[in-house]
Amino acid sequence: MNGQSGLKNRGMERTDVDERRAAVSQLTEVEFDAITSYPFEPEVARTNIENMIGVIQIPLGFAGPVQVNGDYAQGPFLIPLATTEGALVASISRGMSVITAAGGANVKVFSDAMTRAPVFRVRGVEHAAEVMDWVNAHPGDIEMAVASTTSHGQLMQVEFFPNGRSLHMRLSFNTGDAMGMNMCTIASEAVCRVISENTGAELVSVSGNMCTDKKPAAINSINGRGKTVVAEVTIPKDVVESKLHTSVAAFVETNTRKNLVGSAMAGSLGFNAHAANMVAAFYIATGQDPAQVVEGSNAMTVAEDVDGDLYVSVRMPSIEVGSVGGGTKLPAQAEALDMIGCRGDGKALKLAELVAVTVLAGEVSTIGAQAAGHLGRAHSELGR
Amino acid sequence: MNGQSGLKNRGMERTDVDERRAAVSQLTEVEFDAITSYPFEPEVARTNIENMIGVIQIPLGFAGPVQVNGDYAQGPFLIPLATTEGALVASISRGMSVITAAGGANVKVFSDAMTRAPVFRVRGVEHAAEVMDWVNAHPGDIEMAVASTTSHGQLMQVEFFPNGRSLHMRLSFNTGDAMGMNMCTIASEAVCRVISENTGAELVSVSGNMCTDKKPAAINSINGRGKTVVAEVTIPKDVVESKLHTSVAAFVETNTRKNLVGSAMAGSLGFNAHAANMVAAFYIATGQDPAQVVEGSNAMTVAEDVDGDLYVSVRMPSIEVGSVGGGTKLPAQAEALDMIGCRGDGKALKLAELVAVTVLAGEVSTIGAQAAGHLGRAHSELGR
Amino acid sequence: MNGQSGLKNRGMERTDVDERRAAVSQLTEVEFDAITSYPFEPEVARTNIENMIGVIQIPLGFAGPVQVNGDYAQGPFLIPLATTEGALVASISRGMSVITAAGGANVKVFSDAMTRAPVFRVRGVEHAAEVMDWVNAHPGDIEMAVASTTSHGQLMQVEFFPNGRSLHMRLSFNTGDAMGMNMCTIASEAVCRVISENTGAELVSVSGNMCTDKKPAAINSINGRGKTVVAEVTIPKDVVESKLHTSVAAFVETNTRKNLVGSAMAGSLGFNAHAANMVAAFYIATGQDPAQVVEGSNAMTVAEDVDGDLYVSVRMPSIEVGSVGGGTKLPAQAEALDMIGCRGDGKALKLAELVAVTVLAGEVSTIGAQAAGHLGRAHSELGR
Amino acid sequence: MNGQSGLKNRGMERTDVDERRAAVSQLTEVEFDAITSYPFEPEVARTNIENMIGVIQIPLGFAGPVQVNGDYAQGPFLIPLATTEGALVASISRGMSVITAAGGANVKVFSDAMTRAPVFRVRGVEHAAEVMDWVNAHPGDIEMAVASTTSHGQLMQVEFFPNGRSLHMRLSFNTGDAMGMNMCTIASEAVCRVISENTGAELVSVSGNMCTDKKPAAINSINGRGKTVVAEVTIPKDVVESKLHTSVAAFVETNTRKNLVGSAMAGSLGFNAHAANMVAAFYIATGQDPAQVVEGSNAMTVAEDVDGDLYVSVRMPSIEVGSVGGGTKLPAQAEALDMIGCRGDGKALKLAELVAVTVLAGEVSTIGAQAAGHLGRAHSELGR
Repeated sequence: MNGQSGLKNRGMERTDVDERRAAVSQLTEVEFDAITSYPFEPEVARTNIENMIGVIQIPLGFAGPVQVNGDYAQGPFLIPLATTEGALVASISRGMSVITAAGGANVKVFSDAMTRAPVFRVRGVEHAAEVMDWVNAHPGDIEMAVASTTSHGQLMQVEFFPNGRSLHMRLSFNTGDAMGMNMCTIASEAVCRVISENTGAELVSVSGNMCTDKKPAAINSINGRGKTVVAEVTIPKDVVESKLHTSVAAFVETNTRKNLVGSAMAGSLGFNAHAANMVAAFYIATGQDPAQVVEGSNAMTVAEDVDGDLYVSVRMPSIEVGSVGGGTKLPAQAEALDMIGCRGDGKALKLAELVAVTVLAGEVSTIGAQAAGHLGRAHSELGR
Repeated sequence: MNGQSGLKNRGMERTDVDERRAAVSQLTEVEFDAITSYPFEPEVARTNIENMIGVIQIPLGFAGPVQVNGDYAQGPFLIPLATTEGALVASISRGMSVITAAGGANVKVFSDAMTRAPVFRVRGVEHAAEVMDWVNAHPGDIEMAVASTTSHGQLMQVEFFPNGRSLHMRLSFNTGDAMGMNMCTIASEAVCRVISENTGAELVSVSGNMCTDKKPAAINSINGRGKTVVAEVTIPKDVVESKLHTSVAAFVETNTRKNLVGSAMAGSLGFNAHAANMVAAFYIATGQDPAQVVEGSNAMTVAEDVDGDLYVSVRMPSIEVGSVGGGTKLPAQAEALDMIGCRGDGKALKLAELVAVTVLAGEVSTIGAQAAGHLGRAHSELGR
Repeated sequence: MNGQSGLKNRGMERTDVDERRAAVSQLTEVEFDAITSYPFEPEVARTNIENMIGVIQIPLGFAGPVQVNGDYAQGPFLIPLATTEGALVASISRGMSVITAAGGANVKVFSDAMTRAPVFRVRGVEHAAEVMDWVNAHPGDIEMAVASTTSHGQLMQVEFFPNGRSLHMRLSFNTGDAMGMNMCTIASEAVCRVISENTGAELVSVSGNMCTDKKPAAINSINGRGKTVVAEVTIPKDVVESKLHTSVAAFVETNTRKNLVGSAMAGSLGFNAHAANMVAAFYIATGQDPAQVVEGSNAMTVAEDVDGDLYVSVRMPSIEVGSVGGGTKLPAQAEALDMIGCRGDGKALKLAELVAVTVLAGEVSTIGAQAAGHLGRAHSELGR
Repeated sequence: MNGQSGLKNRGMERTDVDERRAAVSQLTEVEFDAITSYPFEPEVARTNIENMIGVIQIPLGFAGPVQVNGDYAQGPFLIPLATTEGALVASISRGMSVITAAGGANVKVFSDAMTRAPVFRVRGVEHAAEVMDWVNAHPGDIEMAVASTTSHGQLMQVEFFPNGRSLHMRLSFNTGDAMGMNMCTIASEAVCRVISENTGAELVSVSGNMCTDKKPAAINSINGRGKTVVAEVTIPKDVVESKLHTSVAAFVETNTRKNLVGSAMAGSLGFNAHAANMVAAFYIATGQDPAQVVEGSNAMTVAEDVDGDLYVSVRMPSIEVGSVGGGTKLPAQAEALDMIGCRGDGKALKLAELVAVTVLAGEVSTIGAQAAGHLGRAHSELGR
């Protein structure tokens, strides 16, 4: 059958994509039209997808301008956001207007380390101790293994978690401007090989899930993964009242009962209103990995009355982003990165700061709306 | 300045979008090109975005065919997947080939209820008890409040979690074929109003975070949110060896040390290899909310040796999807839904079954690859 | 060897205990003296211990009086507390003095159900669904199974958690005035037998750990286990200042940064200062199971400024106590129960209320001390 | 009233205790008898309790002998256990018999550090960074502060967790043979004072709950607290069959479905059967803090088929024990410590090893019993 043979085509010329789509069309009886509309040669996406038959378009809007006072991001920014959730961009934009009226958001990157955590099979506790001792005694061998696979990544820390015949190890790397997961995986495999050869520990998986990649996990909330960033803003009392239509006290109470008490009662790692919304829209717009929205949602929002004004902060312990690699080189994503001056070398920390500020804006707006009592109304007017 | 005034344009005609983009271009000094390429009138996305200036294109591929033996999804399926992570589609497709060779995946939806969890301020424990008593004594008033806002949503359960002066309540709804978050929010607000009026409890937020929407939370893993689905496959020993190039024992050991032991040691709610990858690619392709990848990643993968063959299952307690509403009506997303016969009324449960089977396929392939020792190699060849 | 043969003596006469102790003395070369001092015949402890050689004495103090305004506990109480941690009793007593000066603590039991959660092996998702259907269709058979084992316990709820070839089930019982774990275990075994016989599901363990007994677990925090109790007190501003030597604002800030924010950052299920201290001292004094301090420590303490006064509450979702059975019938423990009028039938809910109030008192005192800045000083004077 | 005035007596002579007890007797109308029986002068317990009126007696048994192959504990041991839960000692003893028949348990201490985690109020992210920088630049000042309070405790690590206006810090100490909580608290207060004076950060609480003391918390499971210990045993197939009356496969399956899968589904930090039982009985017998059973229950039990034999291990990341201080100097507790040669200086690591081996024995026995299908039967015969 023609359809079936087209399915096996592995090419990335435009004609290959067309042939595959035709085969899918024949098998599924769907007339494709919208997915065929894309402004680049499929070759461009060669390292991003297999079996390509077209594209999905996600509407792109912007929020802002927002004034940012970071170590890397400084000045007013228009933030690109790709989403299909009505009211989201408007809400974030409202938060940015409040932040800007308040003089801008401060933001700081407190740590930066991507992790990979292999698991070995050992013979028991004595063998585990021997492996740990060997690694501690041979830092040079470990570094050489890393260096043999990458010139960008640097190993920063090795931690061990022995557990019977499983020996878990968590490796932390500086990965420069790449998100760095693949770099870490390849370097970790090299490290594991040298450990195996010298100790007899048998590698079970280069990822033993203590990394923890793309799963909610306390280890990321506590010890961090990727960039740990905190953003904050102090909103004058009158701005709270005039722009958020609520009071400092109502905002603080809403945040406490909802984001602190409610999340605690739910057994949550996310002490925020909807960080994942901002992270997802930002990540999709800028070519980041949307599966890492999971870790991006590890955010804690705190609100305090400081001398009558409203202080709001978000702590994001695991922002995993890159200004190079992955989806960043696709044309639309590259344009979105250009909007914020975050494409290419030397931009990853700036990018992480802007993620945190965007989350802060979304939190300010949504908690403000809930404090003012009109969350449902906003959705019914804009959203559906 | 022209740029600034264009920013304030709220229209959704194509000329409005063009004007806004021009204004953004002027302010950011970016020449936009790729984002301008989309095959629909912006009006179509009126309820999906604000401040639209174009689109982001995410490469769309397919995986499969995969044989599915569900209550709603039956037969072979080609699954649409949108991603920028190289090797992902190929890996899922490999898993689907294994599943099909094994006779297909069984899949079952065990529950279906979207939740919203308001929080009230009460005067203390006595008042909390009074509010609970009033609600329990007035089911008719509660149902009328729901019915006044929606004809699709049905209230199925009300649970209370009193905590000092905070009274949390979790409402569970059947939302038909919509993911249903907005429907639940609006209905919950109506319920809250009638409770407030009759008991004096003051609504603090229609979402008190015990919902829990878009945050990792044990309450979703345990009690479920959206659809709770389990998928499974029994892979004959020889298929494991010929197609996954590993053994039943190696697969089971890898899964246990990584997905069970490793995730436990990381304090995780995700006992899987990379469910979020499959969920994200599926959700983006089919117009679901990518921020709900967070809950989608609440998956547990279990592998067992059953009479010498390999049994693998995934439990997904919180798949939140709809076959109507949200991004499903955008043209490319609609075509992707058509590929699997999941567009429109009566298709949400089928959609949820296919999400779970796609996750199962990705898990089978990745754990198999790790068991066979070539995860890093796969990435270095296809991914970078 | 004489020592060895004494070890095998299983008797519970005083002479048996003496013989065993002599054998242990011979083997370990320890001259026992203090452990031989106990005021009851070993026969009394026949169902509490095996291989008895004596007793451990835990110093017993009292805290209070504390004024309690519960549904079951009403009036002033002196609370028995057994501990070896200096400063603890004094601190709790200080908290009780504050509570009493504030007019007493309100306390309410919101639910009462002990749980046991067996796990079955099933053939897969279809079989799991069949088992669930059978149970739902045969409530009479299930109730008969329970009734065949106990006249005190009543089955209140059955929940299922299917997961591949594991089918977890959580049974909730009213166990009257007993803590009830053994009653639940025996009744659950009977239920499991009837399910196995009729469905072919194979019982793997009568406890599949979703109970969850004696392990920290979100399921207990969220859905409750044993008694779910909330206690509260409103402390007038001047009492805060005169007796706690701090301010309402300082108390609230300390509680928020420590018990809400800090615990959240630690990935904790215990949003309190030291509930386990009070629970342990209370449980040991009154013959409860000290291993259940684990669940008892699932407490959340919230502090608010209410019209200038200090409102403090503790929510305890899993207090597992009994006024009959277990260690309650040992002589000293019985006397301690008598001190609070909680021995024997009809007293378990009163007992649970007093646990919560005691925890509230300890929280008020410790958070107050930290707010006043002298935690370390208190320990250095009283504790070391 | 005489009763009331006796309550205010703070003395620790025997006559003071008698007077207080008489006052309590008068107020509560309880005739005390059993609690008056104790073999030491109350002065001995001066630093362990306030308001002492007597003692609670907990029955003391022993389990073993168990063969231990540790770095500190070597040879056969009889383990003292204080409990009121029937069947517990017998069950542990059975496990020890199995372990001994298998050649003994290996056990190793992998880390040893007690923690205290203060929280400061700072002015925001910039101030937080300044404080962190100051501490990193002044290690000598920090060490001097510690040294001014203790000659036993040594500061090993300082970690920061900035979060808006809260700056959390986790200090890790070697505390020698003391459990060390008070030592850490006092040293931490001195450290906090020097930080406050030099940076303007204001101490909110010397414990900001990231310690985490006496609350279930992932930070302890992951990063450890007190001693991190792993114990293991390989039980020959025929011993499994002859002594546990089950098979290697049944044991492994029970452990996997219950301790790994079931605990994961419950959102638990305790992946074990009943570690808290062993920890509580051991801690009460040996004068440890029973509130720290909470952290002691952070245990993971893993079972594997290794070449046909049964390998079982327990990982305990947070055993907090001391061979000096606290309740260890009370007479009965001291005798129990003497039974295992763990009283006084240089014995804390040996003590921790024995805790882990005792937990291992209890796990082997209980999981074995569940695998053999007679958990409920055991309880009904011995326990009730």
